[in-house]
Amino acid sequence: MYPKKVAEDTAQVLRSYLTYMAVRLIVEQLTETNPPQALWLVNYTSSHSIQDGEAYLDGLMDENKELVLRVLTVRQDLAESVLDLMPEMVKTSIVQANIDHRRRLLERLTSSTQTNDSQEQ
Amino acid sequence: MYPKKVAEDTAQVLRSYLTYMAVRLIVEQLTETNPPQALWLVNYTSSHSIQDGEAYLDGLMDENKELVLRVLTVRQDLAESVLDLMPEMVKTSIVQANIDHRRRLLERLTSSTQTNDSQEQ
Repeated sequence: MYPKKVAEDTAQVLRSYLTYMAVRLIVEQLTETNPPQALWLVNYTSSHSIQDGEAYLDGLMDENKELVLRVLTVRQDLAESVLDLMPEMVKTSIVQANIDHRRRLLERLTSSTQTNDSQEQ
Repeated sequence: MYPKKVAEDTAQVLRSYLTYMAVRLIVEQLTETNPPQALWLVNYTSSHSIQDGEAYLDGLMDENKELVLRVLTVRQDLAESVLDLMPEMVKTSIVQANIDHRRRLLERLTSSTQTNDSQEQ
């Protein structure tokens, strides 16, 4: 599995997540400009899984070609604006989260040692 | 929502996904070295959601501190080895997927135009 497969799987998850975020953004925009279509897209998305973004888009193509084109454009814009930030953001947040977890682990070990000490006295 | 919120949400999804991948990798390793512990970790993970990676780790801390430390180490290694590849991999795959979807859209529009033409004849 490691590491090429992990990279490929992670890239696919990211692509589908950006597709989902593009749809959410378009729903927000349509809520202002075309509320009935916003409602339609919300209903469509709740009854068609977006877990696999490409299958979702293939299905949407049968219903509304213009919306498909809009999702393609918005997810590409999102990709351009957020992907370059990801390596540094995620690495930093993992380092910070790991420090927090290790600190909590140490606190528990220390407190259980103290408990044992007081029991032994 | 856009674009700082999208970047933050995406980073969080990525961090949890890498936590999930770290657990999967550790299960694979344990299957070779310590099958009973591999089975225990599979069972634990199927009954405790890993959707939020940090909450999952906090829960695991009550059960097996050594495994928590192992997940922290492995996900940091995964982050170092795959994250730098993500921007280029995902952008390229989105560009390619978009080309494929636009081609299919065009084919459908062309074939429906031809159908209309033949109906009009």
